[in-house]
This record gives sequence, C-alpha cells and structure tokens, in this order.
Amino acid sequence: MSTRRVAIAGATGYTGEELIRLLLAHPEVQVTYLAASAKWERPVPVSEVYPRFARLGLAVEALDPSRLAASADLIFLALPHGTAMSLVPDLLKAGRRVIDLSGDFRLEDAALYPQWYTFSHAQPALLKDPRLAYGLTEYHQDQIAKAQLVSNPGCYATSVLLAILPLLQAGLVPEDRFIVDAKSGLSGAGRKADTDLLFTEMAENLRAYRVNEHQHMPEVLQEIRRLTGRSGRMTFVPQVLPITRGLVSTLYVRTTATADAVGQAYARAYDRGRTPFVHVRAGSLPEVRPVVGTNDCAIGFVASPALESLVVASALDNLTKGAAGQAVQNMNVMYGWPETTGLLG
Amino acid sequence: MSTRRVAIAGATGYTGEELIRLLLAHPEVQVTYLAASAKWERPVPVSEVYPRFARLGLAVEALDPSRLAASADLIFLALPHGTAMSLVPDLLKAGRRVIDLSGDFRLEDAALYPQWYTFSHAQPALLKDPRLAYGLTEYHQDQIAKAQLVSNPGCYATSVLLAILPLLQAGLVPEDRFIVDAKSGLSGAGRKADTDLLFTEMAENLRAYRVNEHQHMPEVLQEIRRLTGRSGRMTFVPQVLPITRGLVSTLYVRTTATADAVGQAYARAYDRGRTPFVHVRAGSLPEVRPVVGTNDCAIGFVASPALESLVVASALDNLTKGAAGQAVQNMNVMYGWPETTGLLG
Amino acid sequence: MSTRRVAIAGATGYTGEELIRLLLAHPEVQVTYLAASAKWERPVPVSEVYPRFARLGLAVEALDPSRLAASADLIFLALPHGTAMSLVPDLLKAGRRVIDLSGDFRLEDAALYPQWYTFSHAQPALLKDPRLAYGLTEYHQDQIAKAQLVSNPGCYATSVLLAILPLLQAGLVPEDRFIVDAKSGLSGAGRKADTDLLFTEMAENLRAYRVNEHQHMPEVLQEIRRLTGRSGRMTFVPQVLPITRGLVSTLYVRTTATADAVGQAYARAYDRGRTPFVHVRAGSLPEVRPVVGTNDCAIGFVASPALESLVVASALDNLTKGAAGQAVQNMNVMYGWPETTGLLG
Amino acid sequence: MSTRRVAIAGATGYTGEELIRLLLAHPEVQVTYLAASAKWERPVPVSEVYPRFARLGLAVEALDPSRLAASADLIFLALPHGTAMSLVPDLLKAGRRVIDLSGDFRLEDAALYPQWYTFSHAQPALLKDPRLAYGLTEYHQDQIAKAQLVSNPGCYATSVLLAILPLLQAGLVPEDRFIVDAKSGLSGAGRKADTDLLFTEMAENLRAYRVNEHQHMPEVLQEIRRLTGRSGRMTFVPQVLPITRGLVSTLYVRTTATADAVGQAYARAYDRGRTPFVHVRAGSLPEVRPVVGTNDCAIGFVASPALESLVVASALDNLTKGAAGQAVQNMNVMYGWPETTGLLG
Repeated sequence: MSTRRVAIAGATGYTGEELIRLLLAHPEVQVTYLAASAKWERPVPVSEVYPRFARLGLAVEALDPSRLAASADLIFLALPHGTAMSLVPDLLKAGRRVIDLSGDFRLEDAALYPQWYTFSHAQPALLKDPRLAYGLTEYHQDQIAKAQLVSNPGCYATSVLLAILPLLQAGLVPEDRFIVDAKSGLSGAGRKADTDLLFTEMAENLRAYRVNEHQHMPEVLQEIRRLTGRSGRMTFVPQVLPITRGLVSTLYVRTTATADAVGQAYARAYDRGRTPFVHVRAGSLPEVRPVVGTNDCAIGFVASPALESLVVASALDNLTKGAAGQAVQNMNVMYGWPETTGLLG
Repeated sequence: MSTRRVAIAGATGYTGEELIRLLLAHPEVQVTYLAASAKWERPVPVSEVYPRFARLGLAVEALDPSRLAASADLIFLALPHGTAMSLVPDLLKAGRRVIDLSGDFRLEDAALYPQWYTFSHAQPALLKDPRLAYGLTEYHQDQIAKAQLVSNPGCYATSVLLAILPLLQAGLVPEDRFIVDAKSGLSGAGRKADTDLLFTEMAENLRAYRVNEHQHMPEVLQEIRRLTGRSGRMTFVPQVLPITRGLVSTLYVRTTATADAVGQAYARAYDRGRTPFVHVRAGSLPEVRPVVGTNDCAIGFVASPALESLVVASALDNLTKGAAGQAVQNMNVMYGWPETTGLLG
Repeated sequence: MSTRRVAIAGATGYTGEELIRLLLAHPEVQVTYLAASAKWERPVPVSEVYPRFARLGLAVEALDPSRLAASADLIFLALPHGTAMSLVPDLLKAGRRVIDLSGDFRLEDAALYPQWYTFSHAQPALLKDPRLAYGLTEYHQDQIAKAQLVSNPGCYATSVLLAILPLLQAGLVPEDRFIVDAKSGLSGAGRKADTDLLFTEMAENLRAYRVNEHQHMPEVLQEIRRLTGRSGRMTFVPQVLPITRGLVSTLYVRTTATADAVGQAYARAYDRGRTPFVHVRAGSLPEVRPVVGTNDCAIGFVASPALESLVVASALDNLTKGAAGQAVQNMNVMYGWPETTGLLG
Repeated sequence: MSTRRVAIAGATGYTGEELIRLLLAHPEVQVTYLAASAKWERPVPVSEVYPRFARLGLAVEALDPSRLAASADLIFLALPHGTAMSLVPDLLKAGRRVIDLSGDFRLEDAALYPQWYTFSHAQPALLKDPRLAYGLTEYHQDQIAKAQLVSNPGCYATSVLLAILPLLQAGLVPEDRFIVDAKSGLSGAGRKADTDLLFTEMAENLRAYRVNEHQHMPEVLQEIRRLTGRSGRMTFVPQVLPITRGLVSTLYVRTTATADAVGQAYARAYDRGRTPFVHVRAGSLPEVRPVVGTNDCAIGFVASPALESLVVASALDNLTKGAAGQAVQNMNVMYGWPETTGLLG
C-alpha cells in the first residue's frame, strides 16, 4: 500500500484537533505520532484528550524533535507562532516534508517579523529557500507539488486573497485599495486561558482587535505583490464573534465595475473542476454556517455601480480552509492525490 | 403629583417589552394601558405574557384606538411599519402626545415609502407637519420639546448618525462618502415566526441582508442633508449576528484626518453634560456587551492617516438607545425632565 | 460494484440534512433521490438548499411516492410523525427496504398513538409485522439484518435505553423505577417557524416541555418490557437548551449498587468490538460537545452507595446516534457491512 | 438625608459588577469605595473597568482593609472563598455592618470547611456568633434585621431551599429525600482564566461537575435541619450550560402528593405581599430567561401522583437572587427599607 505516515506537532490546539479529524477520515494516510508542546507532562491516551478519536489508539506526547522526525513521512506543525522555525531545519535535513500552519514561514522578509509577530526570525535564509512554497493552494499548485516545506496561509489571509486576487488581476480595484471588515469565530484565538475569551465575556458580544495591525496584513500584501506585481493598500479590521468556527471577510472596493465584470473576473479565476473548493455567487453575500466543517470558501458579491461600490464577502471555516483543511489540501497536492481527497466528508 | 400616564401599543414585541421595563422603573410615569395588535384574542394578564412585570397589574389587550386615546397623556407606538400612520391622526386630534417607534414618520418625502418600506403612505401631509420632530435626541432637543409627534429613529440610523454627523460637520469626510458595515442582534428582526431566525439557523452564523437596500439608508441621508446640507453617499451592509441585543456600526472613511482632528470633531459634538449617553474614545473600537441594557452609544475610532483610513465604530443596544431607550429619552425632553430620568438603571 | 441506491424523503429537515451528510461520505451507497414534502413547489438544486452538498448534483423535489419507490433500493423516511405510515405499505410491496425515522412504527400497540402522538394509526397491522424491527442497533442486530422495515428509535429513547437496559438486566434498579432529566439541542424540535424556537427566545434560556407526557416514554417502556420483561416506571422531564445539536439524559436511580457493580453491568452489555459506538466511563458524567457530529453514545456514572444514589448520564448527538447516524448504522447491519462503515468521519 | 454609604470589596468579579449595577439604581445608598483584590496594581477609573458605570466617578483600587472599614456604613464582600473570614473581624470591630457573599460564613460547623471548601476556617467562633445571620431573606427577616454580619446564601442553595422548604414543612417529602438536577449559567464560575470556561469549550456544551461533592450541599442540609429539624438526604448534580446568567434547579421527590397539596404547601410559605420575589405556578416548570436580570425566584411544579412523582423547578438569576440581588434585599431588611427597594428595575 502507498499509505503515507503523518505526524502532528501541536495536537492539543483547535487546529491540531481539526487535523486529527480530517486525517482520520483520509484514505491515504496513517497518523503515527501526536505531540503537544515540549512542556506536556506525560503521554496521555488520545481517548482522554479527544474521546471521539479514541480509535486512533495513540497517546499525545511531549514534543520530541527526534521522535517527530522519525515518526512520519510528512509532518504537520500546528504550533504557536515562533516555535516551528527552530524545528524545521532538522526535519528538512532528515528528508521529511513539512506543512507549517503557523506564521513562521509566511513572510519572505525576515525584517518584518519583529513588528508583526514580536519575535526575530531564527532562520531568515529559509524564508527565501526554493524548497519553500506558500500554500494558498488555488494559486500555487505547481510549487506546492514540488515543495519540501509548505507554509500554510493564515485564515484571514486565505479568505481575503481568494476574494481580492481575481479582482486585482482583472484591474477592477482602482488604486489597488480596499477595505476588509473581517469577523472570525473564537477558535481562531486558540485554546488558551484568557479571560477575554471566556463564554461569559464573548456571549452577546463582538470585539475588534489589532485594527490595521494584524499580522495577516503583510502576508496579504506580499502575496498581492507576488501574483499581480501591485502594491495593495488595505484597511483591515479583524473582529471576534460569539461563534466557535467560521470566518467572513467583507471587502469594500470603490469601483464602478458592474456585476457582469466582477462575475467574469471570478469565472476566469475559479471553476468547479480546477478549484473545487471555491464557490462564487453573484447578488448576495454568503452566510457562515453553510461552510462550517467544510473546506469550502464561499464568495458572494453585490455590485452597485451607481454608488461606486462593490461589496464582496468571503466565508470559510477558519479551522478547515483557513488552517487544517487547506493543509490537507496541500498534502494532497504534494503527493499527487486528487485535491479533494479526504475533504468531502 | 405630576405623574404622567403613558400607554404602549405593540406591547408584545421586543421593543414593547423593553418599553415596559424602562417605564416601570421611571419615577415620573404610570403605565395605564398595554395593547398588542388588533388581532389579539382576549385580554391576558401581563403576569402571563411577561412574568417579570407581574406587579404592573394590567392586562395586554387587543389594540382599541379609542381606548388607546383615552388611556394616557403620551402614547408609545411600537407597531410594525405601516400601522402607526393610520392611528396617529386621531391620537393627535385627541390632544395626545405620541412617540412612534416605527418607520412611518421617519421620511419627509412620502414618495420614498413604496421603494423602501413597500407601502404607500396614508398620511403624506403629516410627514411635513410642524408638530412632528425627528427623535434623534442629541440633535433635536428643541423641536422634540415642543413636538406633539416624535418619530423615533431607526436603530442602525441612530448608531450611524451619532458617529458620522460630527465628522461631516467638521469637514472630515471627503466627498461625504462613507461605508457602513453594521452588525445587529436578532431582536432587531422582531419576535416573528420565521425559520431564518431560529436558534438552530443563527447559532454559529452571521448573515448579511438588504445590502444597499435597507430602509434606514434614506433616513440617514435625509438627516445628513437636514443637519449639514450635504448629500452623503453611503454603502450600507446590515448583518445579523448570533446575539440577542446590541448593534455595532463600523464606518470606513477615506481620509488623512489625524486622531486629533477626529477627536476634536467629536468633542465639539458631545460632552458628558449635554449629551450624557454618547461616549467617545480614541484609539480603539467599542465592544457590544458593555452597552447592552443601557441607553449609551459608545463610539471609538482608529485613525491611520498614512493609510488614508479612518475607522469608527458606534455601538448601542438596538432595543434601548436604538428604540425604547431613546423613546424614553425623548419623552423626558418632551416633558422637561432631565434627559437621563429612568435611564440610568 | 455492489453500491446500493438510497433515497431520502424529508430531505429539507435537520435529520434529512444529516442523512445527506453521512450518505455522501458512505463508500457503499449512492444517493439517487431527494424529496421534501408533497407540498414542495418545484425542484430546487441541492446546491441552493445545501450549498455544501452541491457536488451531489441532484434536485430536491416534491415527494412523489412512485418516484420514491422507483428511485432506490433502500429508502430513508425522515418525515413528520404521521406521514410515513401511509407511504410504507407501497414501498414494501415494491420490494424496497425502508428505514423510518419518525415515530410511526415505534409502538407495537396502535391504541397508544392517539394519546402520545395525537393521531390514529392508519396501519395498525404493520406495527406487529414480522418484517418490522426496532432499530436500537446494539440490541437488535439479528432482527435488523433481516428486516424490510426498520423503525429508528427516538433520540431521547436511544440515550435512555442504552443507559438503563444494562442496569435493569443486572437487577440494579430497585422496583425498576428511575428518573430522567433530559436536555436536548434545539435541532430536535425541527426546522419549523415557531416563535418559541427563535434565537432571541432560546439564547440564555432553558425550557422544559411535555413533562411526563413525551411520546418517547411509551417507546422506552415498551423496549424495557421486550428486553427485560419488566415494567419500568419512569419520570421523564425533557428540556431544550441553547445548543443546536447534542442531548444528554441524566438518569437517577435509588440504589446502593457500587461503582464496581455498575461498571460490570455495563461491561457485560458493551465492548468496543461488538458495540463500537457506546463508550462507558466510571466516576464522571460525559459532556455533550465531544459527541457532537459523531455516532457515539458516551455514558458516565457516579455511584454514591452511602446516599443510595446512582447517577448515570448518557450523551449523544440527537441528529446522529439519535437519528440519522443510527439509521445509517442500521442500514449497515441490513446490508451486512461493518457497523461503522461511513460513520467514523 | 438618610443615605447610607456602601462599599464593595471584590468589585471586578461578576457578582461585584452586579452589585454596582443594583446599588447605582438604589435610592437610599451611595457607593463610596470599590476594591478589587489586594493584588490589584493601581487605581483604575471605573469608566475603564465598566464603561456603563462611568457616572459613578470612582476608581477601582487594591483592597486596603483600613480604607474599606473607613469608607462605608455597610460593606459588601464579594471575594473568593477563604478571603472574607480574615477581613470580617476588624470590620465588625469598627462597627460596620457586613454582607459576605462568599461561603466563608455559611456553615456553622468549622470542621466542614476542609472537606467542602478545601481550607481550614480562620474564625471558627464567628460561625456561631449571635451577630451573624444566614441571609436567605424569606426565612430569616428578623435575624437579618438585627444582624451585623449577614452570610449571603449560595446561588444553588437559594434555589433549592426556596423550593424544598415548604414541602418539607408540609411533610410532603417522604424520608426527607430528594434529588436535584441543577443547571447554571457560566457567570457562576466567576471571571477566571480557565480553558474549561472558554466560549469555544462551552458553546454547544453542557458539563456536570462536583457530582454529590458541591459545597452548597452541606449549606442546604444545615438550613433544612435548622428550619425543619429534619435530616434531608439530597443527591445533587450541578451542571454548567452555555448561558451567561440564570440557574434552574430541578427537584425530584418520590411522593403521591397531589398538585393541590403541593400548591397549598407553597401558598402557606409564600405570598406576593410578604415574599414579593417568590412566584409559584402549578402545572408547568419555569423557563430561565424571564428571571434573568431580576431578583425573582420562579417556582413551578408538576405532580404525577400515579407515577409517585413530583417535579419542582426553581429558577433564578444566579447573580441577582442568587448573589447580589439577595444581598441588596438583605441590606434593605437590615436598614428597615421595603424589601423591594432598588430591586424592581
């Protein structure tokens, strides 16, 4: 059998949990190692950490880099920002393929890390290494197929890029300027003990944070430059909602573009055969609930040329297409499996 | 005692319920009559409709216009759009003062009703009647004090106007153009049997509706014209969230205005003494939860001149400052009581 | 290929939606027909009803009994109570196998229907037909394997029976008397326009209903009689919670039984090999969240012999193990496939 | 004026916040001092901690026992269990009246503290001090009126006692044995950084905890002994729900008592004039939402003599009647004000 062995570092976070869910249902892989952080006290059966995954029969262990390297053909790193960059060099040397779900390899310019991620990058050379691909699957299949290290995009970045790139490529964004009002479920903030994230604080609430200072901004602008050669200018307001999963980015573009022109731009970029997870609809904005638990990105738009206004909303599940699902999609590309393998459940 | 008698028509909706809550705690009034719709079958003790208001000792009855006129000095109409316009003429003739919480008297131009409210107006002359005032309290105290009929603003309109008017007056909104991404709790949609509003549909969801077609748009633009003489151009995206109460309008203005300039514009418009319910803070956007259950409107802003971007968020409770609370505030003005009477609980 | 064709009548309800989700991921079946109710106006592409299932490429149609019979080998009926009983005879005559998810075939005694379901049964003879099996999978595999018609148990009934049967069989329930305090997610009430089910009514709420009058009571007692020969006496308080999916039944038994005795009773009844979906843990009660989206039933118990008290909680997803998942589990048994086929995603 | 000065220690918790809300609306008191814990870093204006209470014009300060004693006539202690017992002696010596909302003075027998509260009591003599009253208002008005120190009951204890005491007094509880299945909002767990209390963990969840080990058990049994001379035997299962505020205790009693007998027992115990906050209804169980934000306790019951079953549910807001509201009610009694003063908003 051609089954590949896969491991997860960071198995106790929400992204790690979603990875386990997806990989357990994936017909081509076998999960062989689950690591929490290096501080994890002792192995705990997965049946205790996640009763629903009891049949996996593994334990969650403290992260041991050499065991990680030995355990699998492909390794998913779902660790806090700033952790993966020290692990990756040895994994690459050991011949492993790696998909990193943190921000550690998303920015080419190491000089940007102190400002946006609050740490200095330990491996600046790796950021421009030819073995590295940026895992926005719909735009980089060829590089991902050959990559040894894939940097999985941020959840906001994925939703914004899938919505704005076709418009920029079609020249429908005057001055390349747009606004993003983004709303995310709370799993995006991770499973961490923080009173701001308590049920009692977030039920019946909505909270904006890091206005124009979120670390996905340089990631989006870098990718716009890479793919269109343009300098996008983005206002970005991320907000958390009282929902667990799901994210919608609402984009505002000042333009007289008609619905037809916008529809054609998206039709050139996406179609069901080649980009099976991106669904575009004219005339209305997508709800969040229908994409939750799927790897879909649902894009809808309302063009009001008389108002010089185009509104686009891009909805996805932050844990699936925004993290673990896109990671599995990238794995499928890396191994030459159909892109949807294990992702239609 | 100078206690005034007040009545509520539309007592079984969320706005009516909030009116009862506020009026029960108001030291200057006595609630004397509670009407549902004309189709209400038979009187039902308020203790059954709203156990928490049992001490009121009234029944909720079918709406009877002559009983309504006879019951009180001031009448709150919290009825579906299109219902109040037929009741008001007789109430005015009977010498009553009226605060209407529907959209029936919000637009001066009767010709706008078919498009935005889907009905033709039955009393077009009343829309320009000098006895009528628009009840955005902070901007019309003098007219409200003298008015016999007050048209209480829409919830979105209130939040948008309190945020944008000072900026327009200060000339900080180039081309008078702005974008509003608004998020509302579901009580704004009323207590109606609609599968779209089920818990099972709205939990873990967010839904945009009436993009650039919401009836609060002409109301906002009319008020901008009235107060600034300008023709605002607004993109407006209303959305419902899985919260019961509360609303935040996030405004986007393309401007190089600095935080200082914006702060001064708001300082000229609002101060704790004269406008006790409007609170402005620089540098961050307000959360929804702190305003729920209050008559406050919390405004916060982030100015990013280098991005030519100003973000303002305006948060209020759609049932309080966005409806029943502002109605009580207007009543206070109409009777010369301190504006905060009964609204600080 | 041995792929079986399956159809769903009642595809627009929550149970129907969950059936589609599960059947799409099932390797042995192909969905060939989706019917709503007979009143459905015209075919609507499933991509509009459920965007996430767009790849199914079918339409949802008005229920047409002859098309239903012709469309598939096995038919899932997920219709309101009182609808299936008229459809089933023709489906059986046509040689189809049927799994009914309503209450129409759960009670052997037709005389009970007027009291508990408010209708008279149209097919009383069928209730005792040897082709009919009660689909509590863990207890009736042999009958289900041979059945042409399977009556899928109620969600509450499933959770209560899986918890109480082993205790009754072990003689640990004095006087066969027990209490059930049950809490269910709102999807159990269906997708129906009812103000009691609005987000605004159920957020921050809990509501008991049909205390000691719920239609799952005679179903539970009948099954207890059938399997143990005993007359159970149950107090039953069903409640809805502000959650979408998931259900927990908390059982109270007055007994001095020790944790060991209780654990042994469950160990005799269930083990991972033979009953892969039932998980029992001593010393704590299960949470709801871990079972949501799974076909698991998690049972936990706390025995306090000094208090003469045994508390057992039984948690499952009302749409999965409590409805669509158990239906698929039963289909697996009917066709001789491993019981977990398509249910481990 | 006879206005009393009041202070709050523990102003940053949910109970402290609710105390501020209620005391701000109370016509007879003035809040003069707000303390957090002793570790609070520096004074922070209440407008930053709680924007809605900005008009209070105070700062929240680190707890300073001598300032606390000097600041007010009556002091509310809303501190974590184990903190108040060291503060109270000096406050009493200074002649202050104190209402303690923790468990520190709820149990007469100091020997019970290590088992139920995990600490040894520092002031065992005070537990039997004649200046101390147990603040279940409806049952101890006379002692509370004279008390210098009132121990405010636990939220679960309040709901259970108000429901069970009339039945015990009427001899309707055979063997004095009953079961309580209690469901609480998450504010009951406090504002603490704990991953178990995250929105992402508790949305769509229900969790039982401390089954038959909760510290309100000895409190309930002690009060039963005190008022009825009986030894109650209680099974107690507390659970948290995805709601912020509100609590319902569902009691199960094996009895053949009729609805009439039960109704009479409650009628003897409660009536609107003497116990204005306790509302009893026969034939149905109360929902949680109507009591949220009120000081009401809504009791409903269903008697099924044929089943030998009586179900009683007792709903209240854990922060109001279950904590801050009952504390204010007790203050009203202590100062001879009408019991409802400031509690009908």
